[in-house]
Amino acid sequence: MPKKPLITYDHSLMFAAHSGEGFSQDDAPEMLRKLGAVRQELLRLKAAGEIGFFSIPDAGRELRRVETLAAAVRKEFKTLIVIGIGGSDLGARAIIRALKPSGRGMDVRFIGANTDPEEIAALLGSVDLRRAALNIISKSGDTIEPMSAFLLLRDRLIKRVGQRRHARHVIATTDAEKGTLRRIAETEGYRTLPVPADIGGRFSALTTVGLFPAACAGVPVKGLLAGAGEVLKEFVAEPASGSGPLIFAGLHYEAYVRGFQHVTVLMPYAEALRDLGAWFRQLWAESLGKKHDRHGKVVYHGLTPIAALGATDQHSQIQLYNEGPFDKLVTFIEVGKFRGDLRVPNPYPDIEGAAYMAGLPFSRIIHAEREATALALARNGRPNGTLTVPDISPRTVGALMFFFQIATAAMGELLDINAYDQPGVEEGKKNMYAILGRTGYNL
Amino acid sequence: MPKKPLITYDHSLMFAAHSGEGFSQDDAPEMLRKLGAVRQELLRLKAAGEIGFFSIPDAGRELRRVETLAAAVRKEFKTLIVIGIGGSDLGARAIIRALKPSGRGMDVRFIGANTDPEEIAALLGSVDLRRAALNIISKSGDTIEPMSAFLLLRDRLIKRVGQRRHARHVIATTDAEKGTLRRIAETEGYRTLPVPADIGGRFSALTTVGLFPAACAGVPVKGLLAGAGEVLKEFVAEPASGSGPLIFAGLHYEAYVRGFQHVTVLMPYAEALRDLGAWFRQLWAESLGKKHDRHGKVVYHGLTPIAALGATDQHSQIQLYNEGPFDKLVTFIEVGKFRGDLRVPNPYPDIEGAAYMAGLPFSRIIHAEREATALALARNGRPNGTLTVPDISPRTVGALMFFFQIATAAMGELLDINAYDQPGVEEGKKNMYAILGRTGYNL
Repeated sequence: MPKKPLITYDHSLMFAAHSGEGFSQDDAPEMLRKLGAVRQELLRLKAAGEIGFFSIPDAGRELRRVETLAAAVRKEFKTLIVIGIGGSDLGARAIIRALKPSGRGMDVRFIGANTDPEEIAALLGSVDLRRAALNIISKSGDTIEPMSAFLLLRDRLIKRVGQRRHARHVIATTDAEKGTLRRIAETEGYRTLPVPADIGGRFSALTTVGLFPAACAGVPVKGLLAGAGEVLKEFVAEPASGSGPLIFAGLHYEAYVRGFQHVTVLMPYAEALRDLGAWFRQLWAESLGKKHDRHGKVVYHGLTPIAALGATDQHSQIQLYNEGPFDKLVTFIEVGKFRGDLRVPNPYPDIEGAAYMAGLPFSRIIHAEREATALALARNGRPNGTLTVPDISPRTVGALMFFFQIATAAMGELLDINAYDQPGVEEGKKNMYAILGRTGYNL
Repeated sequence: MPKKPLITYDHSLMFAAHSGEGFSQDDAPEMLRKLGAVRQELLRLKAAGEIGFFSIPDAGRELRRVETLAAAVRKEFKTLIVIGIGGSDLGARAIIRALKPSGRGMDVRFIGANTDPEEIAALLGSVDLRRAALNIISKSGDTIEPMSAFLLLRDRLIKRVGQRRHARHVIATTDAEKGTLRRIAETEGYRTLPVPADIGGRFSALTTVGLFPAACAGVPVKGLLAGAGEVLKEFVAEPASGSGPLIFAGLHYEAYVRGFQHVTVLMPYAEALRDLGAWFRQLWAESLGKKHDRHGKVVYHGLTPIAALGATDQHSQIQLYNEGPFDKLVTFIEVGKFRGDLRVPNPYPDIEGAAYMAGLPFSRIIHAEREATALALARNGRPNGTLTVPDISPRTVGALMFFFQIATAAMGELLDINAYDQPGVEEGKKNMYAILGRTGYNL
């Protein structure tokens, strides 16, 4: 009997007879046949070393380097300012939001790197740079958003601590060999961490890119890789019918190609997982939004991710999901056991509008909220599924991230697109260089 | 010559010949005819007092009450904990995120009311309740999310300051006459603010609901109403062809009914406007996502809002917007002049990858980012528009909110739906009551 997986996937409301749109239980065998082929192909690419992120759970050497450096930086400084954008920003945010222990670890601040002068000024006004380390994260080092912010913060840092001492404050996470930031780091003598050459930004949360800020924040990062490893092991061992990430991809694919659900909603019922949604948004949007398939045919593929949050967004988005167009596939994330619980007091036993909730644990309320919403959606013909993790821990957060990374890779195979490039980002970048007058660029 | 409007709307890239999908300049006259009729109907409903939110800019009496109460609470307490969900939460968050003066006003914390026990415990662990006021916001007072959190916080407050003194800490924003919270407030002797009877939650940001927390945070709330008033005055005075909110609605409607753009992206290029996107998401989703039109016909209407942020999301979402399905209409918000600026230093004149950005003001970079992205989208056949405000101030934030409220009302008219109810939220609520065993509810 197979071990119960760390993440269980309840997709019973995908096939509910009353859902009436898109899916049918009869389509399952054909879907599983396709997923079996996808699984074989991904295992082949993994063995050939052609999909870099599959090696993440084995990155023992990088893990020790991250842990050692983070321990040193934690002793020397109080605040870590992370300067990165997109994949160099969203992964660490998601991990730290979910797992930062209160009262331990560094205070980690994200500059977000959106080149907003007000935001940078606010950061400078609220951080003592003498006690702060800067973690600049950029593979190439000539991306304007993080590098402009870094050059400014570096300048202010030097004004506070001097040119000679400032180098101790900077940790550059960048390409191991080449690029502008590597060159600057060598000139200045900064400590560095390598960005894995074969893992793209949006798949790099569980590499040096995301693990170093997380370790500085006090997150036991080893557990993240252990959780990812469990998901990988299961993916390798189980057939497609027993693989959560493959079935997740398969159901989204089948709904998408039928022309129905091309909006993918991820809705965790836990504040701690709020920023996981923002990380997933990039992974799903940038990997799957592609004009061309792998043979150069114009396809304009793409699934539009939406990060929602339960129970909050029941009072913001659920009206639309229940009554609007049949274009969404909603996935809830349920947390089995919270890291603490509280009960509603009963001060007004005679006021029914308050008494009905008296004595309930909050965990029971939030679970009921999810269950009720899932049921309402299904009754309105809206397919939805639920991923359940036993708790919020490094192991489950690492597992969730790796689950979505495998699911995204599988979707790339199903759609026959390159899930690992981003040609559509380059055009805007070139326009911007032209507008700013960088040599060699024209509108 | 008409005065230049506070919010300018550049929609030149909607009709760009190379956009090739959905829109055509030839459709403009017919669209303006429709919008003229919508304008007449909205003015009729306004005169008849049938759309409550149109009275917001005239709410002088409520404004003084809010300002007086906030001044008193600011003297007595250090922290304000806002307990609300949806429309009782998102408006104040957006205003405070944009406008809170640093170093002045109360520290305002939002409980979010999503019934997450970890989140409530984290709040309790980080706030000194002896110096905190609670602002519980609920029209009825039997919504489980805010009321369960309120009952718990009230209980902890009483444990700290005693039953007799706790009443001074609570401000209840609720129905002026009836409901569970009104009854509790009268029993306990809480100070109260009335929720306007004829303004629904998602249209209430500029009423007592959003203005009181904002005033406690130190925001000069009078300016918000002044900005809303300018937008209203212009709406009344100008024909449809000169009305930003009407043209915004018209363009979204025309794209929607052609079967193309049913995803509405709002992407401000300013961190300060980040939470405005979350507020807009509820307004647009809950108002326009409707199964029935006003004649009872089944229509399943709805436009799916997405809150993006520039420049950050260029490295997360723009790949999809540039290359994915032709289902999105993107609106940028540009800020003319930031409340401060900074320049990129030039420490590495010999490294081209750093030197090209040296000397640039950050405001120039972020403006170039938006311009470059808009152009790339248009060249890829993706219609987009830009709203420009001169700065981020109470006047412009109030104006933006009122702009979107009028645009939403106009969309309701164009789609012939009731933009002010939310029947699709009720079903999940009833399911949840049944799951939790509340008397009178069954699955």
